[in-house]
Amino acid sequence: MTPRLGAGYYAPMFEPSVYAARRAALREGLARRGVHAGLVLFLGSRESPKNFLDDTHPFRQDSSFLYFVGTPSPALAATLDLASGAEAFYADESTMDDIVWTGPTPSAAELAGRAGIGRALPRKALAPAAAAARGSGAPILYFPPYRADAMVELAELAALPYAAVEAGASIPLVRAAVELREIKSPGEVAELEAAVSASVAMHRGALAFARAGMREYEIVARVTEIALAAGGRPAFGPIATTKGATLHIHDYSRKLEEGGLFLLDAGAESPGGYAGDLTTTFPIGRRYEGRQREIYDLVLAMHKAATSLLKPGLPFVQAHAAAERTAFEGLKALGLMRGDAEEAVEAGATALFFPHGLGHQIGLDGHDMENYGEVWVGYDGEPKSARFGRKSLRLAKPLKAGMVHTVEPGLYFIPQLIEAWRAEGRFAEFVDYGRLGPYLAVGGIRNEEDWLVTESGARRLGPAYEKDAPSIEALRAAALGAR
Amino acid sequence: MTPRLGAGYYAPMFEPSVYAARRAALREGLARRGVHAGLVLFLGSRESPKNFLDDTHPFRQDSSFLYFVGTPSPALAATLDLASGAEAFYADESTMDDIVWTGPTPSAAELAGRAGIGRALPRKALAPAAAAARGSGAPILYFPPYRADAMVELAELAALPYAAVEAGASIPLVRAAVELREIKSPGEVAELEAAVSASVAMHRGALAFARAGMREYEIVARVTEIALAAGGRPAFGPIATTKGATLHIHDYSRKLEEGGLFLLDAGAESPGGYAGDLTTTFPIGRRYEGRQREIYDLVLAMHKAATSLLKPGLPFVQAHAAAERTAFEGLKALGLMRGDAEEAVEAGATALFFPHGLGHQIGLDGHDMENYGEVWVGYDGEPKSARFGRKSLRLAKPLKAGMVHTVEPGLYFIPQLIEAWRAEGRFAEFVDYGRLGPYLAVGGIRNEEDWLVTESGARRLGPAYEKDAPSIEALRAAALGAR
Repeated sequence: MTPRLGAGYYAPMFEPSVYAARRAALREGLARRGVHAGLVLFLGSRESPKNFLDDTHPFRQDSSFLYFVGTPSPALAATLDLASGAEAFYADESTMDDIVWTGPTPSAAELAGRAGIGRALPRKALAPAAAAARGSGAPILYFPPYRADAMVELAELAALPYAAVEAGASIPLVRAAVELREIKSPGEVAELEAAVSASVAMHRGALAFARAGMREYEIVARVTEIALAAGGRPAFGPIATTKGATLHIHDYSRKLEEGGLFLLDAGAESPGGYAGDLTTTFPIGRRYEGRQREIYDLVLAMHKAATSLLKPGLPFVQAHAAAERTAFEGLKALGLMRGDAEEAVEAGATALFFPHGLGHQIGLDGHDMENYGEVWVGYDGEPKSARFGRKSLRLAKPLKAGMVHTVEPGLYFIPQLIEAWRAEGRFAEFVDYGRLGPYLAVGGIRNEEDWLVTESGARRLGPAYEKDAPSIEALRAAALGAR
Repeated sequence: MTPRLGAGYYAPMFEPSVYAARRAALREGLARRGVHAGLVLFLGSRESPKNFLDDTHPFRQDSSFLYFVGTPSPALAATLDLASGAEAFYADESTMDDIVWTGPTPSAAELAGRAGIGRALPRKALAPAAAAARGSGAPILYFPPYRADAMVELAELAALPYAAVEAGASIPLVRAAVELREIKSPGEVAELEAAVSASVAMHRGALAFARAGMREYEIVARVTEIALAAGGRPAFGPIATTKGATLHIHDYSRKLEEGGLFLLDAGAESPGGYAGDLTTTFPIGRRYEGRQREIYDLVLAMHKAATSLLKPGLPFVQAHAAAERTAFEGLKALGLMRGDAEEAVEAGATALFFPHGLGHQIGLDGHDMENYGEVWVGYDGEPKSARFGRKSLRLAKPLKAGMVHTVEPGLYFIPQLIEAWRAEGRFAEFVDYGRLGPYLAVGGIRNEEDWLVTESGARRLGPAYEKDAPSIEALRAAALGAR
C-alpha cells in the first residue's frame, strides 16, 4: 500500500472534484426524498483522549466526513446548504505553538480547496452558521453520532437536549448516503483490493509465525507489525485467540497449545481508510485433528454454498440461509443435529452453532456504515429478525453490483450456550445434546473472505490463495519445518 | 514483562488490600485537608468508539481508577463515602449475549472483592447513589475529567451543567491523590523497571532495524511489535521521525535518507499500565556527521548537567535551568549564542533551541497525572511561568524519594520559529541568527531517560546502556554490517 506522502495527515484520497460530486449527489438524493432545504453538517472527528487529554489514540477520521469531504485530520467540519447549494469548510489556522509541537499545517483555504470547497471559515464559525440556519427555519441535518464529544457539539448545533441528539439524526440523509457509499467506485475497489492484500499478508504472516508455547499477544504483535509496515494499520482490534468459541474475544493472554486451533480475525486499513476483514482458523500444530477437520471442512462447505449464490439481485439473507442449511446437513451427518433441514433452519436451531450473521458490507468501516443503523444499511428499512442468530445478521437485502461485503460462516461449540439450551430442552427435536460433548474441544471455527458483487456474479478480493485444509496444513508444515 | 494471565482483562495488578489501603490513605489525606464528608467517585473509563460504536480503540482504564480500584475493564465505577468510610463497586453481570460475543466475565461481587470492596451493585445504581448523597447534603468529589463521555455522566452524577463539570472537579481530592501517586511503591518501581526495559528493547530494535530507504512507519511497525510481543503495548503514539525539529510529530510517511538523523520518542506500557518513555536520536547512516555530532554531544552534556543534580529536595526547575545553562555555553562555543549565560537563561533566549521542559513524572500515565493539572502535579499549586519554553516545563517542584520522572533535554533548529524571532529581532543580543543557517539541517535532537529519585540521589531505570555517540555509532555499524 502507498501512503499519501508529503501532505501527511492532510491529503484526501481523491481529487477535489470527487468530493464535490459526492456532495452534489447527496443533495440530489435528498431532493429525491423530498428534502430541499436544511443545513447538512459534516462533523469531522476530534482526537480521542486515552488516559489524559493530550495522550490520544491514533487519530481516525469519521467515515462520513472521509467520504464526503475527505480530509483525514482532526477537528474539522463542513456544511452544505441544501436550498442554495452553498458549502463551507471550517478549520483553524495553525499557531506558532502548533508549528513547534506538531509541525506546520496547510491553511484552512488550502484544506477547503482539496475538498472542493471554495469557502474556508474558522472552526468556531460553525456554531453561528448552525444558529443562523436554525434562525431562518432550515433544519439541521446530521448523521447518527457514536461519540460523546460529537453528541455534545451536535446538541449545541441542533439546539437539542443531549438525550435527544441520537434520535434527531436525519434518516433521509442516512438513506441518501447509504445509496452512494454502498456502491464502490473503481478507485474505492482498488483501495479495498490493497487493504485485502495487506490483510492476506497479515494472515499468511501469522500462519508462518505461530508456534505452540507462544502467547496470543505475540501473534497480535506480528500481524500488527505487518499492517503498519505496509503503510496501513489494523482496521479493527484483531481477534487472535485459542478460544475461537468466543466470537469477539479481545484478551490475548493465553498460551498456544499443541493440538489446538488458532482463530485470527484481522484486517488492514488502507492509507485511504478502507478496511479488509478476514478470518482464518488454523492448527497450532501441523494438522487439523479428527473433529477439527470435520468442522473445518463443513465451514468451508457453508462458505461455498453461500458464495455460489452471490450476484446482483440476490437477497443476502438467502445466502445466509444457504449456509445454515449446509450447516444443518453437515451437523446431521455428524449425528449432532436431526430432523428436517428447512424446519430446523426456520425454527432457528442452527443458531446454536452459527449464532452470527453470514456477513456485512465493508468500505470505510470494517462494518460499513454501521453507525447509520443496520435497518438502513442492511435491510433497506425492512424490520430485522429478533431471533437469536438472525438478529446478528447485518446484511439481508438484495445485493447490487459494486457492493463489497464479507462472507464469514462459522461453527462454534459454546459451553454456556449449549448448557443453557440443553437445560431448557430448546430445539431438542433438532439437536442431539448428548453427542455434543466430544466437540466442545473444537471450540470455534470461522472462515471469512471479502467479496465484490460484479455485474454478473461476484469475485473474491485480494490475491489468489487456497483455504482448504490441505493447503493450510502445507503452510503450517512449511512454517514448522521438518520434524 | 508478564501479562496478568487467566483472568485476562479483569485482574488488578495488586492484592485487594493494596487498593483498600490506597483508598484509606486518600480518605485520610482528604481529612487532613479538612474534607470529612462527601461521596468520592471513581469513574472507570468506557470503551472509546473509533469509527462506529462497536469499533473501539484498545481499551485503556482511567489511571485514577487503576490506582485506587485496580480493575482494568470498561464501564465500572466505585464510590467511597468519606463520612462513613462505606465503599461500593458498580458493575453489570454478563448476559448470555455477552458470553457468546465476548466471553464469560467474573461476577460483580468477584470484581468488587478483587478491589477490596465488599459491596457490589449494578452499574445503573451509581446515579441513584450519587443522587442520595446529594440529597443528604454530601458533596460529590471527582477527579478532573478528560473525556466527553465521562463529562456527560459526571454532569448527571454531580447535577451540574455540562459546561461546569470541568471546573467542578475536587482540588483537595487531586492534591490528596498526587501525594500518594507521585511516590512509587517498590511494586510500582518494579513494574516501571519492566516498562523501561521493554522501552529500551524498542529503541535497541529500531537501532538494529532502521535503514536508509525505509519509511518512518516501518520503524513504528517494528517498535510497536516489540512492545506488543513483550506483553505490553506502546504507552503513547510514538514520535518516529526524520523531522526531529517538530517536537510531537505523528506523521510517519517520510523516507529515511542517508546522512539524516532519526528521532524516536517511544515507550512501552507494562501489563499493569505503567509507562516507559525514552528518546533516542540516531544516525540513519553509520555516523553523526559534523554539526549533528556537535549538537548530539551538547544534548548529552545538558543531560549530565541535569542528572548530576538529582536528589530529594532539589527543585526540578533547577535541573532544567542547569540544562539551559549548559545549552547556552555549548551554543556559545559554537558561535550560535553570545553574551552572559545567566542573563540569556533568565531572559528565555535558550528556549529558541530548547523550547520544552526537561521532564515530567511517569507512572500510570506517560505524563503522570497530567489530567490532574500541572499546577498541582508539577508545581504544588505555585504559579507556572507563562514564558515560551518555561511554560512547557511540566515538573518544577522539589523532588522526593520515590518519584520517577523523565530527563529529556533537546536542541532544535525550527525554521519557522527562528525566522519569526529573527524578523522581530528577539534576543538579538544573545542569538547570532546569521550563523544558524548551516545548523538547520541538523533538525532536532533529544535524549530522554527515565529516572527514580532515591533516598540519597537518583538512578536511571532499566538495563545499563550507553548513549554516547561512539556507542550509538557502534550499534549502527553492527546493524548495517561491513561496508
